Amino acid sequence: MKIALAQINPVIGDFAHNSRRILHWTEEAKKQRCDLVIFSELALCGYPPQDFLERERFLRDHDRALAELVAGISGIGVLCGVLERHSGPTGKFLHNSAVLFEDGGRLFTARKRLLPTYDVFDETRYFEPGSASAAFLYKGTRLGITICEDIWNLPAMFPRQAYAVDPLSELMSPPNSKPEILINLSASPYHLGKDAIKNELYSRICRRFNLPLVCVNQVGGQDSLLFDGRSLAMDRSGGEIIRAAAFQEDMVIFAAETGKGQPHDDTVTHEAIDETGELLAALVMGVRDYVGKCGFTKGVLGLSGGIDSSLTAAIACQALGPANVLGVALPSPYTAPESIEDARQLAHNLGCRFEIMPITSLFESFQDTLAPLFKELPVDVTEQNIQARIRGNLLMAMSNKFGALLLSTGNKSEMAVGYCTLYGDMSGGLAVIADLPKQLVYKLARRLNSGKETIPARVLTRPPSAELAPDQFDQDDLPPYDMLDAILAAYLEENLGVDEIVARGYNRPIVEDVVHRVRRNEYKRKQAPIGLKVTTKSFGHGWRYPTAQNYREGKIQE
Amino acid sequence: MKIALAQINPVIGDFAHNSRRILHWTEEAKKQRCDLVIFSELALCGYPPQDFLERERFLRDHDRALAELVAGISGIGVLCGVLERHSGPTGKFLHNSAVLFEDGGRLFTARKRLLPTYDVFDETRYFEPGSASAAFLYKGTRLGITICEDIWNLPAMFPRQAYAVDPLSELMSPPNSKPEILINLSASPYHLGKDAIKNELYSRICRRFNLPLVCVNQVGGQDSLLFDGRSLAMDRSGGEIIRAAAFQEDMVIFAAETGKGQPHDDTVTHEAIDETGELLAALVMGVRDYVGKCGFTKGVLGLSGGIDSSLTAAIACQALGPANVLGVALPSPYTAPESIEDARQLAHNLGCRFEIMPITSLFESFQDTLAPLFKELPVDVTEQNIQARIRGNLLMAMSNKFGALLLSTGNKSEMAVGYCTLYGDMSGGLAVIADLPKQLVYKLARRLNSGKETIPARVLTRPPSAELAPDQFDQDDLPPYDMLDAILAAYLEENLGVDEIVARGYNRPIVEDVVHRVRRNEYKRKQAPIGLKVTTKSFGHGWRYPTAQNYREGKIQE
Repeated sequence: MKIALAQINPVIGDFAHNSRRILHWTEEAKKQRCDLVIFSELALCGYPPQDFLERERFLRDHDRALAELVAGISGIGVLCGVLERHSGPTGKFLHNSAVLFEDGGRLFTARKRLLPTYDVFDETRYFEPGSASAAFLYKGTRLGITICEDIWNLPAMFPRQAYAVDPLSELMSPPNSKPEILINLSASPYHLGKDAIKNELYSRICRRFNLPLVCVNQVGGQDSLLFDGRSLAMDRSGGEIIRAAAFQEDMVIFAAETGKGQPHDDTVTHEAIDETGELLAALVMGVRDYVGKCGFTKGVLGLSGGIDSSLTAAIACQALGPANVLGVALPSPYTAPESIEDARQLAHNLGCRFEIMPITSLFESFQDTLAPLFKELPVDVTEQNIQARIRGNLLMAMSNKFGALLLSTGNKSEMAVGYCTLYGDMSGGLAVIADLPKQLVYKLARRLNSGKETIPARVLTRPPSAELAPDQFDQDDLPPYDMLDAILAAYLEENLGVDEIVARGYNRPIVEDVVHRVRRNEYKRKQAPIGLKVTTKSFGHGWRYPTAQNYREGKIQE
Repeated sequence: MKIALAQINPVIGDFAHNSRRILHWTEEAKKQRCDLVIFSELALCGYPPQDFLERERFLRDHDRALAELVAGISGIGVLCGVLERHSGPTGKFLHNSAVLFEDGGRLFTARKRLLPTYDVFDETRYFEPGSASAAFLYKGTRLGITICEDIWNLPAMFPRQAYAVDPLSELMSPPNSKPEILINLSASPYHLGKDAIKNELYSRICRRFNLPLVCVNQVGGQDSLLFDGRSLAMDRSGGEIIRAAAFQEDMVIFAAETGKGQPHDDTVTHEAIDETGELLAALVMGVRDYVGKCGFTKGVLGLSGGIDSSLTAAIACQALGPANVLGVALPSPYTAPESIEDARQLAHNLGCRFEIMPITSLFESFQDTLAPLFKELPVDVTEQNIQARIRGNLLMAMSNKFGALLLSTGNKSEMAVGYCTLYGDMSGGLAVIADLPKQLVYKLARRLNSGKETIPARVLTRPPSAELAPDQFDQDDLPPYDMLDAILAAYLEENLGVDEIVARGYNRPIVEDVVHRVRRNEYKRKQAPIGLKVTTKSFGHGWRYPTAQNYREGKIQE
């Protein structure tokens, strides 16, 4: 049996587009004389469709689109992730399923059994789990079909099982006949380091059950989620046979009899990339897809001459093309001349359009307007925020006038502790590097510069400053970034408490201050733009904390 | 058995505060010689604690606070909603439980079995369901203890059961001994019309099982959720025996032997209120609690002289006291003199502070600054947004300088179709009337004015206008509000599609336009402030739609 692994980049709810991508790769698989072509989890509607699943009209359109595909394809088997009605007397109305169809007939349906409901996942909100797993005999080969989370419950891999059932064990156990090939359809969001975890899991599964494994994963950016593709076939000893491209549509072919794999086309190259290269590619895809799927072609952003906006601009130019990017320097009275020079040089290096629009006179006008009300009250953070919000207003005006999506430039460290201005620098449709801790921002910038200097070298060496007050430097308000990022990772990604973080050797008042700032700035993040998720825990849909709260660790009495 | 129903207003994670409230009412119940005092679902940590539940330190603090309560209370039984560790080999780490303790010992624990995972609820994200229900014999009486959703699966009430198990039936069935009193601990968020549904459900349950029912519900505002209290006891024929106050802490007492109820204190009056009165009370509580629980005492808001900001100001003054509210008129070149007059009169009627801060010169400065870039490009919505964002900047400056929380004033109709400016009039910590359709805004304003004219009469009769362009009226850009609100209710609350809404007699191009606007403005709502939920479907945590999507009803092919 010759199996095509086709990873498409679906648009949520765009049944016409998604059907076209499915038809395109099905034709390609037929040309290459494949017996079966496999698409990813919920490939027809795109993952995650969220509350569209509660709309009957959406489901009807999905079912019609599926019926058209089933009726319209012949000469090859298609296994595709689809929505399926659950008709039982109780429970949710849908299954997350994979349907195998051929020459107008539906041969088999597998239902997802393990429904992730944590972090960014809400699957029990919509789906009823499947109740059984059995291999299906197709063209003489027993296929063991699973969907994403179904294979993420392997006892050898996880110290504690999140689910009481294990579809893999069930597939292998009598009275079921053991499959000859394991198949997994997934829409598994990327994060830094996940590829290694997946490879480990997949190869353990192959070895544990002595079976080859075929995984087809969604590709593309969907709001904050980045799907990396990299669909693959592994042999029964867990060795990689063939792997599709990362961060782009692709198809590869696995010949079960020979155990050999091949690309669909010799022009697609699959270079191994290191972690920073992978991260850059993920962010570039995320920007391209978010901007494009929202109907834009152009981007605009503020260039402060700092590292965050420089990196964001470089990513935007790769994603949209430099001709579609406008970078604007918006100097205030506290902006150093070097900042403007560096912003200009960056734009020159990137080849994007550059404008300078000083905000000093607007800042003065705001102060004049407010003077009768503020009287002799001392200058404080208010005046800093006013500057940031003038910039936000100007950038949004350009966004509105030119039809360019505003990209915001804040990093994860400052989003965490609220070192940013709501409606100011936080303005934008997409926060490109909002899940990158500051240290990682530097790392990516250095990587970008590794061939030739794109970001002016001085940007990487000057001490970071918001430049909203005289002689202001981040390190006057915040702990050193290496310390801050380590504390934040412990708090955000490991869920540790203050005591545990202090036990790692950090100063207690600093840790308490950082944790306090994270909690107290929930309100800013509630109104932040969508940020591209690249770590195990990003702010956004998978980070759900109350804004009104008064939790103080260890405080149970007044 | 004499049972006290004590509804507290908890602060999420504030174990010291919540313990104090529990101790306060326990003492009161002891004074009144009660045998048992009942608190609401998760009363000790507050509902919903969201991702705090993933933090071991939070759970430890909860457990210590509970241990202190158990050890510290004597002479009365306490039944309280608490977190309980789930120690099983698989599944989530917690149960949502009710523990009955007395004189230092824990006598019984009931676990929530039906875990709502829809709309604003995410309970399967955190909790493992309980697996059995049986009555507990306490002081000679068999208590049937359930938690919130556990009793919301009654076949007679719902055409289709959402859950495969029914804890109530199980409580009543052999080998279990039938309880003599049914008890329900809940944290059931308010929406318009829900009280009637609850009364219907409760009385059906009493009649179906021929048992009295005691329900204790959380009270208070928690971010977008408003808990209305109104804890009650019902007799076996479904008649109300006693009911606690709406929208405030209270305790009432139910004597099981006599079937009689009594307030804890004759000074608390329980007036029947109509729907608009109820809604006003809910919103006032929501503002007071959000502002207070976030650590503020003061509020600031823009007064346009329109109906939305007028109603918001009136609610804010009731919630915070007029002395703590600053209303600011921010006239632009397009503001009618009547608008300023009405804003001033409103502030005078309310007794709050009032300022006028014209934005004309700032607006001109922005246009001058942008002129070299915008050149001869025609005036469009950009210039409207600039004005709104100047106002946002000024109001946020006042918020920052005076430590007053900015209240935004947009209604649900405009939030739905995006007739509002991100970072402009959408700025603020809390969107007070964001879940009120425009027609309901008028209804509440008329109700407010029913005694004496608070909102100047002209505000209710002038045609609504954003006053961001010459001779601009809402009805030039939007369908009439009665039609718009009906279409929106059908789309948002009933989940109907375009065809179904058209079938109700609305013009197809209008319906298509409204639905298109709702979908296309998801990005604005993603960055909107928290809005107080008062309908069955509000924007916010219970409304989860992708921003990047291209769903077009009925379109499955190009």
